[in-house]
Amino acid sequence: MPDNKRSERLVAMTKILLDHPATLLPLGHFTQTLGAAKSTVSEDLAYLREVFASMGLGKIETFPGVAGGVKYLPLRSPEGILSVVEELCVKLRSPQRILPGGFLYMTDIIFSPQWAALLGEAFASLFQERSPEVVITMETKGIPLALMTARALGLPLVTIRHESRVTEGPAVSVTYLSGSNRRIGSMSLPRRALPTGARVIIIDDFMRAGGTVRGMLDLLAEFQAQVVGTGILVEMVQPPEKVVQDYLSLVLLEEVDEAHKKVVVRPNPRLERRG
Amino acid sequence: MPDNKRSERLVAMTKILLDHPATLLPLGHFTQTLGAAKSTVSEDLAYLREVFASMGLGKIETFPGVAGGVKYLPLRSPEGILSVVEELCVKLRSPQRILPGGFLYMTDIIFSPQWAALLGEAFASLFQERSPEVVITMETKGIPLALMTARALGLPLVTIRHESRVTEGPAVSVTYLSGSNRRIGSMSLPRRALPTGARVIIIDDFMRAGGTVRGMLDLLAEFQAQVVGTGILVEMVQPPEKVVQDYLSLVLLEEVDEAHKKVVVRPNPRLERRG
Repeated sequence: MPDNKRSERLVAMTKILLDHPATLLPLGHFTQTLGAAKSTVSEDLAYLREVFASMGLGKIETFPGVAGGVKYLPLRSPEGILSVVEELCVKLRSPQRILPGGFLYMTDIIFSPQWAALLGEAFASLFQERSPEVVITMETKGIPLALMTARALGLPLVTIRHESRVTEGPAVSVTYLSGSNRRIGSMSLPRRALPTGARVIIIDDFMRAGGTVRGMLDLLAEFQAQVVGTGILVEMVQPPEKVVQDYLSLVLLEEVDEAHKKVVVRPNPRLERRG
Repeated sequence: MPDNKRSERLVAMTKILLDHPATLLPLGHFTQTLGAAKSTVSEDLAYLREVFASMGLGKIETFPGVAGGVKYLPLRSPEGILSVVEELCVKLRSPQRILPGGFLYMTDIIFSPQWAALLGEAFASLFQERSPEVVITMETKGIPLALMTARALGLPLVTIRHESRVTEGPAVSVTYLSGSNRRIGSMSLPRRALPTGARVIIIDDFMRAGGTVRGMLDLLAEFQAQVVGTGILVEMVQPPEKVVQDYLSLVLLEEVDEAHKKVVVRPNPRLERRG
């Protein structure tokens, strides 16, 4: 086998890049780990950049200069995103997911690491151009998806909770009207969890009328955060009037028909118009 | 550059393997995606297995036969685990983490995708030999770590919640005595979330007296689950008597000295005795 040293380096560099998504790695990181010259590493990275691009494995960006380095972005094409969402819709249509009362059981998908990773990369691809600095979610079911979105964007995740804890220091709280059950709830975020004026994206698993996101916007306003995007996994078509605008959902849930054992879901048509 | 086709395949195969940790991928997955012959793919995988082993990138296992394939396990050596935990201790010792009341602020680390991934791979390495089938955690702060542990083990994550929801169907609930605040709490798991008799590992972020894990064990007994391991990120040394046995923590928290601005933490010496 010719040039095995080079093959070894390419494999190891691929592993290092994938283990640090959206993170700027200085060239020195590779020269030290691999015991290779800077020129060799540069050549290898140029080659990897081409292979990743031509095979649709994501994007490798290189930045010149002293503060430079290389960054791997696990970005998916619009077609790639749509095919993941279509696969998800097939799974959601299973009549076994229908619960008494016409609810749809999604908890297994929400907490599946594999689905969270796929869907997190989808949201990362949709929002990365808006240059967010922090990903925000609300406990509990938003966390896996938001964590994987944050991972794919190389960003920290901040989780809003229903109650503040003594173990997290001074906190800001707001009350909100949950659209799903017409109940007043409260949400809270420790002061130190989010720097003032940060550019944030909101990621959550489900939206009915949008009351939870509305509350999150109110809470984030207390931190002077700039909300540059809101991503929702599953949006109920009813009610059509939401209390928030400017959000993007992946899946539209039209109806859970308990009598006929039918779940009507489809990919958000806005996904098809992109790209 | 010699044999570029082979280099391309090796890079793409590395990407596919890393994107599906602990998942059995049939050889056909690679022959189709890469348009390569089965013998070529087999040869490449044998080479990758060697490179991964010799460079400490994790373990590649191949399984022969019709139902066979290849599996990538992101396993870390005992030294690798210890060095991650030592780095974490350095971070935890920062006096700025001390909150009024002598609490230690860890939320940023808990919700950091990068730390969750590193620590999840550590727990996966420590528990994979016990052949768990499901990873279990308790909302909220256990989720990122447990999700990443589940990802590294190729397993589903099941999250116990404080209250049951109508949207998740029939549920089993237990009450428990929280050791931290001497309060009675409740925890609940939907019937359909966990098959009867599953082999599970419990992953949580923090343990004081162990009341929460004790409650989880009681709840899991209702599902006839076999708990084959319990992993805790940070364990308080006080009180020395815990209400559970058979758990493994990564970090021991001895003291948060508010007056002298000192945090006393260290890697669990049990980690050093392994391997």
